[in-house]
Formats: sequence, structure tokens, C-alpha cells
Amino acid sequence: MTASTRTPKLAERIARLGTETAFAVGAEAAAFAAQGNKVYAFHLGDMNLPTPENISEAAFKALREGKNGYCPNAGIPQLREALAVDVGASHDLALSADNVVVQPGGKPTIGKFILALMNPGDEVLYPNPGYPIYESQIEFHGGVAVPYSYLEGAEDYEIDLEALRSSITPRTRLLILNDLQNPLGAELSASQREEIAEIVLEHDLTVLCDEAYFDIRYSGTSASLASLPGMAERCVLLYTFSKKFAMTGWRLGATIGPKAIMEVIAKLNVNDESCANHFIQYGALEGLTGDQSGARQILATLRERRDTTVDMLNDIEGVHCFRPNATFYAFPNVTEAMERKGFHDVEVFRRAVLHETGVSVCSRTHFGRPLPGETQHYVRLAYSGIDNAQIEEGLVRLKAYLESPGA
Amino acid sequence: MTASTRTPKLAERIARLGTETAFAVGAEAAAFAAQGNKVYAFHLGDMNLPTPENISEAAFKALREGKNGYCPNAGIPQLREALAVDVGASHDLALSADNVVVQPGGKPTIGKFILALMNPGDEVLYPNPGYPIYESQIEFHGGVAVPYSYLEGAEDYEIDLEALRSSITPRTRLLILNDLQNPLGAELSASQREEIAEIVLEHDLTVLCDEAYFDIRYSGTSASLASLPGMAERCVLLYTFSKKFAMTGWRLGATIGPKAIMEVIAKLNVNDESCANHFIQYGALEGLTGDQSGARQILATLRERRDTTVDMLNDIEGVHCFRPNATFYAFPNVTEAMERKGFHDVEVFRRAVLHETGVSVCSRTHFGRPLPGETQHYVRLAYSGIDNAQIEEGLVRLKAYLESPGA
Repeated sequence: MTASTRTPKLAERIARLGTETAFAVGAEAAAFAAQGNKVYAFHLGDMNLPTPENISEAAFKALREGKNGYCPNAGIPQLREALAVDVGASHDLALSADNVVVQPGGKPTIGKFILALMNPGDEVLYPNPGYPIYESQIEFHGGVAVPYSYLEGAEDYEIDLEALRSSITPRTRLLILNDLQNPLGAELSASQREEIAEIVLEHDLTVLCDEAYFDIRYSGTSASLASLPGMAERCVLLYTFSKKFAMTGWRLGATIGPKAIMEVIAKLNVNDESCANHFIQYGALEGLTGDQSGARQILATLRERRDTTVDMLNDIEGVHCFRPNATFYAFPNVTEAMERKGFHDVEVFRRAVLHETGVSVCSRTHFGRPLPGETQHYVRLAYSGIDNAQIEEGLVRLKAYLESPGA
Repeated sequence: MTASTRTPKLAERIARLGTETAFAVGAEAAAFAAQGNKVYAFHLGDMNLPTPENISEAAFKALREGKNGYCPNAGIPQLREALAVDVGASHDLALSADNVVVQPGGKPTIGKFILALMNPGDEVLYPNPGYPIYESQIEFHGGVAVPYSYLEGAEDYEIDLEALRSSITPRTRLLILNDLQNPLGAELSASQREEIAEIVLEHDLTVLCDEAYFDIRYSGTSASLASLPGMAERCVLLYTFSKKFAMTGWRLGATIGPKAIMEVIAKLNVNDESCANHFIQYGALEGLTGDQSGARQILATLRERRDTTVDMLNDIEGVHCFRPNATFYAFPNVTEAMERKGFHDVEVFRRAVLHETGVSVCSRTHFGRPLPGETQHYVRLAYSGIDNAQIEEGLVRLKAYLESPGA
């Protein structure tokens, strides 16, 4: 196969398939590190914390007890039940196991939602900047990806609802909402959430609520569009075990929503991968129902990192960053700092920062195609994969570089 | 969400989505057992054998050592390398890690192959009787599923190559080949394999070689279409850890093929699930490179079950079954036995057998839509999920029932 010279005739849809361009940042950082340079890895969406031991032990115990065969396509009943209880309580919804389909990660919910509910030519509203897989999956399966953007306020980013409203057409069928947002760290106000519910009802939309960061919250209480009147029957929730329990590499999550849609999602499971790994579901069950000290420790660690990151960023001249109450991302506006250093392109700036300081970040360009009229520049720092001492060291370097004269 | 009354507007493609109807057999068997009846579970494609301990221990060790974060989308380099060596050796091909993309199971390769290579309207040749997911995925993504069938010989089933040839049109793009076949237990002769290679070249086809049972072989040596001249660059292999190492519930496999196609498959991984579970890949690595006694024991157990199953089936009047050298299925012709008992419908027969004897099997109807002109009747017995003593007990009952007078 190595000597292959035949050019395969790929399906036409492959030309519409996107990717996570942030992986290229990881490759650049690795190449820089391989030259003997110190790298401060703020580009990762991954975590450098161990999974709580009670979860790992429960998974191993299940395997030793013979859970190495297939499980039901929608997941083991105990885990579906436990998720119905947990998410039902946090969302103030009456859920049962029938509303829950276990998935091999949080991400599979995105593609399956699109396949289950979008026809070719349908328009889908999605956040931009946002997780790039939305745009990719919409277009891959023949839909029209219609971006909505955020307005920068003093203490948060807010969805530009006026613009969102004006982009709705008779072909608009779906809305993707990522409240507690990657990369912005933003969250909706109660009044914005209510206005979105109105829009959803007015235009008869079905909504994917990507709630990957619902439980990664440092103050206040997370809220969901699905909890508002009339919304439960229109919302499909993306749930993941990845963040709360530091289980990114386990690949376990769930799709949660109206039973009629969940039956279709389970049928997609039959077709796509049969089921998620059987024995790790017992680990997740322990995560939901057992000792919570591990999850609390993860959150405490992330909170400390957030404070260090945000405080030190705001201490840099020309960098402005609000303090997110949730997620593990900071999305500072670096426009002034770039101007001071003579940069006009955020990707050129990002690479200069990497090579001058070792600080590796993603830029706005890694989160969807930039929109017309954008004048401000942003980068994303993830503090989930870097220790507090390294955050401090890296951001001291960043400050020294950005406040020094010249490019 | 329980009180939902809204009927969701599903995507039109959902009407074309198939399933594994064999799950309904499992539900019938469970319902019969719940009434206090003994069930002999020959309907399962699952295994009731433990995963070799060295594999489980290697996975746990990796998790304890911090492999709980994401891994590369195409899998850990060590496992890709080990698969390239292992499959390269068994297939006499020069493979490298670039030819291997790790998947969360064997099944994901089917859908990703279709998405990567089939356009709507393309015709895809697929085996019928065969694994029902082929038909489902082809039609779901807008292709035309064109069945090819098998002719029953004295010692094997053979693909009806004349009929296959005659069903090829200018729209035929892909061929799905499941040599070492589920449900038939059939395998190609060398001359048939060569004739298929000719057809592939003549019509410029790309082939999915579903080799899920390549290593489940009791005598002789497995061979692959991909090993024939000119075929490597046209074949994509479905590899799975499920059967050889009794890891069905782990959900781990791989897509193996030309680098240009593997790059697309890896990009689909980015979009669909990011990666397969990280730490279990170290278990699979131990499976490929470590002590093989566990795999040998699994095979020895299955061989004993095969012999019991085939010997006892052939000892029943009106039942004819060849002895497969591979897979863990027997697919006896039960036409005469059905006639003796007055049955005309194989599903009515299957249910009668379950309720009169407790023997639970699948029938031909669970493996693709029956084709015009079929006159013979078949059932499938899987002996992967039932102990030898239970096989004996169940088939004694089956013989008594089928050889008794009346329905």
C-alpha cells in the first residue's frame, strides 16, 4: 500500500469536510519544543489532571467481572438512569432513561444531531467564534451553516441577537447553542436565554444545546435553554463526562432529549459503532453516583488557574480579558497589544508570541471562518492542560514581550 | 421531556436508515426466558469469554500512568505501527502506521468508508445474506445497494460471480466483500478471489474488505483480496480486536488502507468522535505484541464449539450444514426440516423452535432483504456466546423437536 500511485476517487462531500485547525497549533508547538525550547501549552483543549481513582477502579472492576461484551446500543440502563436523574435535577426536567443515549464522547452528538434532523439545503444557526466541528458537520452533510456572532461587553460576550434574528429565513431549521461557550468562556444572561426561547418557538426550530462545560463552573449556577417553558421538547443536549471528571481520553458522553429523537439517535448508534465501551460506563456511573471529592478537586484546581490566567492577562498593557464563571478558557482581546507591536494579522502575532516567549495559544481563526467586518483580534488560552506555576511563568514572559518596544 | 407531544421533524434520510433486526430476536429470547423458560442463546453475535488478562492489565496500567487525556485522532503511534506489522505480515503487504487509523470498534469503518468514497446515486455491491449494516449505511447516505448472493455447494457457499458480474453498471463504484463471512461462515476459493480482483480492475472499483473474522480460523490460512496484485491500492480493510481477543465490548478496531484514503478517514475521526479511547489502545497493543496464549485459548474453545454445533446439526434429519473453517457461525439449510414440520415461513419456524425447544437463532431474514427467487431456508447459529455443554443440551432438544411428527 505504500507504493500506491492510484489517486482515490473521493466522495464529493469530502471537499466540504472541515477539521479542527487547532491541531496545527499543537504541531507547531511540538516542533518548537523539539528544537529545545520551553513551551507553555495554552493551546490544548485537553486536561492534565488524573481521572478520580474511584471512577477508574469502578471501570476495572466491571471489566474483571465480565463486562467485556457488547452492551445495549443506547448504553447500560443504570448509566442512562443515573444521567436522567443528574441532568433532570440540574435542569429541572422530568427525565427518564428513555431520554438518554450514551455516546463514545461528547462530540458524536453533534454529527448525529445533524444527521437526524437536518436535510440538505436546510440552514443551521451556529456560533462563530465557536467549536469548528459545528460548521464542518453542517456543511459536510449538505446543510447551510449560518453563523451568529458575539458582541464584546465589559464583563462578558453576548450573542448578537439582533443579527441572529435577521439571519433567519424560511429555510432555517436548527440552532446550535453552546452556552458556557468554547472559546469565549461566555454565558447567556437569563433575559438572552428567554429571548432565544422566543425565537425558537417563533421559527419552530430544534436546538442542539452543547453543554460540554455545564458543570465546569466556578461561581453561580449553570442554566439551560431546555429548562424554559416549551423548550424541553425542542432541545437535544450534548452531555460529556470529559471535563467534570477529567475523562477526555475515555471518550464517553451522552445525547439527552425527547424520546422520539433519542430513538433515532440510538438507531444511529446501531449503525455507526454499536455502542460505547461497556465497562467504562460503570466508571462513569461511579462518577455520577459515588464520592464527588475528585470532581470538586478538579474544579478547585481549574478555578485557581483561571484566576492566575485572567489576573495576569489583564496586567498586560493592551490585553483585556473578562473573568469567565465557567469553562476553562480565556479569550482576551489583544488588539491594542498587537497594534503596539506592529502586528495586523492575528496568526502572525500568535506565531511571534510562540517563538519569542514559548506561550502557545490558539487564535480566533481556529474557531470558525472569520466574519466580514471583524475589527478586533482575540486569542484563546486554555488553562486545563497547564499547571499554575507554568501559567505564571509563561504569562510573565508574555507580559515582558508584549510590553517591550518593537515587534 | 417525558410529556413531549411535539412530533420532531426528522431528516428525510432517517427513513432510509436500517438496523440490525437481530436485536429483536434477542428481545424475544429475553421475554421467553423471563417467563421461566430455559433459552439456548445461539442468536448472539457476542462472546461469553473473558478478555485475556494481560490485555486488561496493560489497559489499566496505561490509565494509571496518565493516559486519560486525548490521543491523536488516528490512534496512538505504537498501536498503528503494531497493526501495520501484524496485518502487513498476514497480508504480505508493506504497511506503515500511515496506512492505519484506529477506530472505536470494527463497525465505524463501514460508515466511514461509505462517507469517504460513495456519492449519492452510486451503486455499491454488497453481500446478501450479509451483515445488515452494509445495506443500511449505503442507503442512508444516498447510494444504491446492489446485492450479490451466494450459491450453496456441498462444502461451502460460493459467491454467485456470474450474477455479480451481470449486476455491474456504469454507476457501480464500490464493492463490499466480507470474506470469512457473517452469517454464512463461507470463504472464497483462491480462484474466486482472483476472479474478483479481475472484476475490480475491469470496473475500477474500490473495495471494503470486512475482515472481522480474519483471525478466527480453525484450519488453513486466511487470505485477503488486498494481497493480490494491484489490489492493495484499491482495498480498505476493516480490522477489529473484538473477536480474536474477546474484546467486543471494548469497541476497538482499525481502518487499514491506502494513505490518501486514510487521511480522509482520520479527518472523519476528528469530526465524529475525536479519537478512540486512549488507554484501551495500550491493551490492544499488548494483545498484538505480548503473550498470545489467551488468543489461542479463545480459538481452541471456539473450535470445540464449532465441532459440536456442526456435528449435532448434521445429525438432525432435514438439516444440512457444512463445517466452516473460520468465523463462529453455522448457517444450516433447514428447508427439509421445515417442510417435514409443515412450516413455510422461516420466521414462523424460528419462533416455533424458540418456544418449543428454547433454542434461539437468527434466520436468513436478519441478514439483508431476501432476494427474489430464494427457495431454500436457512437459520444462523452463533456459537460464540454459548458454552459447549449448553450447545449439546440445546441441540438435543432441537433434534427431538424437528424429528418428531407434527408442527
